[in-house]
Amino acid sequence: MSDGLNMSRRIRRTPYTSRIEKVGVRGFSVVNHMLLPKAFQPTVEEDYWHLRTHVQIWDVSCQRQVEIKGPDAGRLIQWMTPRDIGSSKIGQCLYIPITDVDGGLINDPVLLKLAEDHFWLSIADSDVLLYAKGLSIGMGLDVIVEEPDVSPLAVQGPKAEDLLAKIFGENVRDIGFFKFDWIDFAGTRQLIARSGYSRQGGFEIYLNGSHLGEQLWDMIWETGQSFNISPGCPNLIERIEGGLFSYGNEMTRENNPLEIGLGKYCKLDGSIDFIGLKSLQNILSEGIKRQIRGVLFNGGRCTTCSTPWPIMVGDKKVGDITSAIWSPRLEANVGLSMIDREFWKMGQIVAVQMPENNLASGKIVELPF
Amino acid sequence: MSDGLNMSRRIRRTPYTSRIEKVGVRGFSVVNHMLLPKAFQPTVEEDYWHLRTHVQIWDVSCQRQVEIKGPDAGRLIQWMTPRDIGSSKIGQCLYIPITDVDGGLINDPVLLKLAEDHFWLSIADSDVLLYAKGLSIGMGLDVIVEEPDVSPLAVQGPKAEDLLAKIFGENVRDIGFFKFDWIDFAGTRQLIARSGYSRQGGFEIYLNGSHLGEQLWDMIWETGQSFNISPGCPNLIERIEGGLFSYGNEMTRENNPLEIGLGKYCKLDGSIDFIGLKSLQNILSEGIKRQIRGVLFNGGRCTTCSTPWPIMVGDKKVGDITSAIWSPRLEANVGLSMIDREFWKMGQIVAVQMPENNLASGKIVELPF
Repeated sequence: MSDGLNMSRRIRRTPYTSRIEKVGVRGFSVVNHMLLPKAFQPTVEEDYWHLRTHVQIWDVSCQRQVEIKGPDAGRLIQWMTPRDIGSSKIGQCLYIPITDVDGGLINDPVLLKLAEDHFWLSIADSDVLLYAKGLSIGMGLDVIVEEPDVSPLAVQGPKAEDLLAKIFGENVRDIGFFKFDWIDFAGTRQLIARSGYSRQGGFEIYLNGSHLGEQLWDMIWETGQSFNISPGCPNLIERIEGGLFSYGNEMTRENNPLEIGLGKYCKLDGSIDFIGLKSLQNILSEGIKRQIRGVLFNGGRCTTCSTPWPIMVGDKKVGDITSAIWSPRLEANVGLSMIDREFWKMGQIVAVQMPENNLASGKIVELPF
Repeated sequence: MSDGLNMSRRIRRTPYTSRIEKVGVRGFSVVNHMLLPKAFQPTVEEDYWHLRTHVQIWDVSCQRQVEIKGPDAGRLIQWMTPRDIGSSKIGQCLYIPITDVDGGLINDPVLLKLAEDHFWLSIADSDVLLYAKGLSIGMGLDVIVEEPDVSPLAVQGPKAEDLLAKIFGENVRDIGFFKFDWIDFAGTRQLIARSGYSRQGGFEIYLNGSHLGEQLWDMIWETGQSFNISPGCPNLIERIEGGLFSYGNEMTRENNPLEIGLGKYCKLDGSIDFIGLKSLQNILSEGIKRQIRGVLFNGGRCTTCSTPWPIMVGDKKVGDITSAIWSPRLEANVGLSMIDREFWKMGQIVAVQMPENNLASGKIVELPF
């Protein structure tokens, strides 16, 4: 099946892996110690056009949930994030940066508020479970921090709503963006959110119960045939064009949320207290030194960006590209990059230092592309 | 190069990856968000015989270090582990289970004591960094918890000592098992330990400074030619035969250290306090319910164990195999398994439920095989 990634129990399979294999997966990534399908029979470009036109089913089980439940649940979560969660409502999804003492990013999950004392953090690739456990144990909080048996399945693309309305009823149409509701499935009640890691619209079903995975996949797959459904995954072209960032790629613990353009999610006026507040206040008062920008560059179809590519202005290194790919729509390479303040203005001409020692000319552009 | 694993910056390359590619790596695993080379040109069996006869160089950079430094460093580490570290000495490596409140295993790192207030935890595959950060922040401890730029390179096999003595001097011969010392390399002082994830002897160089990686690799590689050196990696046959367990495979947070046979590293008499003490005391007084055993079984060369394989006695499921492979030396399959108490005695006849629905007969055996 896959000769580049060596399998073992440690690289966890998902409730949908058997189905993913059946439809011809060609490559995986590993996120949160779990398989993330990343390549199917079509090319990334064919997949890109399909995602923009039809509907896809994505195994995103690796978006593991960190369940935080109990009297101190809200207190623990507020302590972990600069975003004010005080006015959040049940049924709401909130994108929340999680910070370290120095303001560095630990993760950038989506928070789902299930009840006043019950939350899920739908995480990117780092063990937030262990951070939350450590904090809770260290502070002696009255909460349970666990990973429930929840495996998100995404349905993305312009036809996603019609497909899911046909399967689960018209009510799914009423779910607002970044809101969630509940559907009945196989005698169970399952959470569905209007969300997902694309800009093409769609939903994520947070399936609670691995044993139901194949049944859920099959139901969507079969009904999806008349919608021209295909198996898919976060599409690198679509994600970069859409300005969707990836923890571990665009941001690491070396970056703070202000650099990532997440200032609007950082309440720094002292009205809430959280880990890293003082550091972020200092960074803000000293001025943000670098920030994420788009870079549009030529030089032919670029290779995979597996280490940061230096961005130059003359002899000066002014930033790094962290993800890049050829955009068939823009007929140029598109990259996400961290750029020093002096050079981050739109239209700035730059050169990209590619791995093969050739310099490609480019310019700083707005996100999304 | 590798079409089964999709590369990105998030799956971090190591200081040795360029060299690993040069010598023909064919497959990777991902550990601690970093590439672990797992397959080269020879088969696993050829590699097994080579490792037992000659010397190999392994890129084990993914054994990341969690550096804990400061006045409260010893206190934090003791709080994380059931092993009494009070009498540990500078220059010593200690295998320490790290536990959760319920006694579940968070990780099983090697602790290196650099100074009374300065430790490295050389970790298996989970973000111990975030657990330690959470605890330290939650308890308000006076420590720094960081991941230094340290990338272990292992030299394993019966000729490892001769090779490294030739390069770094005769003093390396004096390093005891699970002890470390320092060597001079390229004007720097580097830590070297007599340790490694095989039973064939050898060393691990904890290279501090990624920029020196290729130079270190080249020096060992070139001098190693006359020792019949080859690139390698933890060998699944050798590791299973040797009874070396892997976090995420043989043990997860579902398992406690007593089940893993780590009772000798658990000080449960109340003379030290740590996270999970009460839970482990309860487990001990109620009696350990299951424990790791070897299983020797037939049925022809088994496939990769990527989900636990049930072990049956009659109609009763009595355990699971978590790692398994064909042993060319024993001419049978060897497996590591968690077995219920009633059935864990040596010589117990069992049946292994393989993925293809065929039952293989086997028996419980001592570890190492």
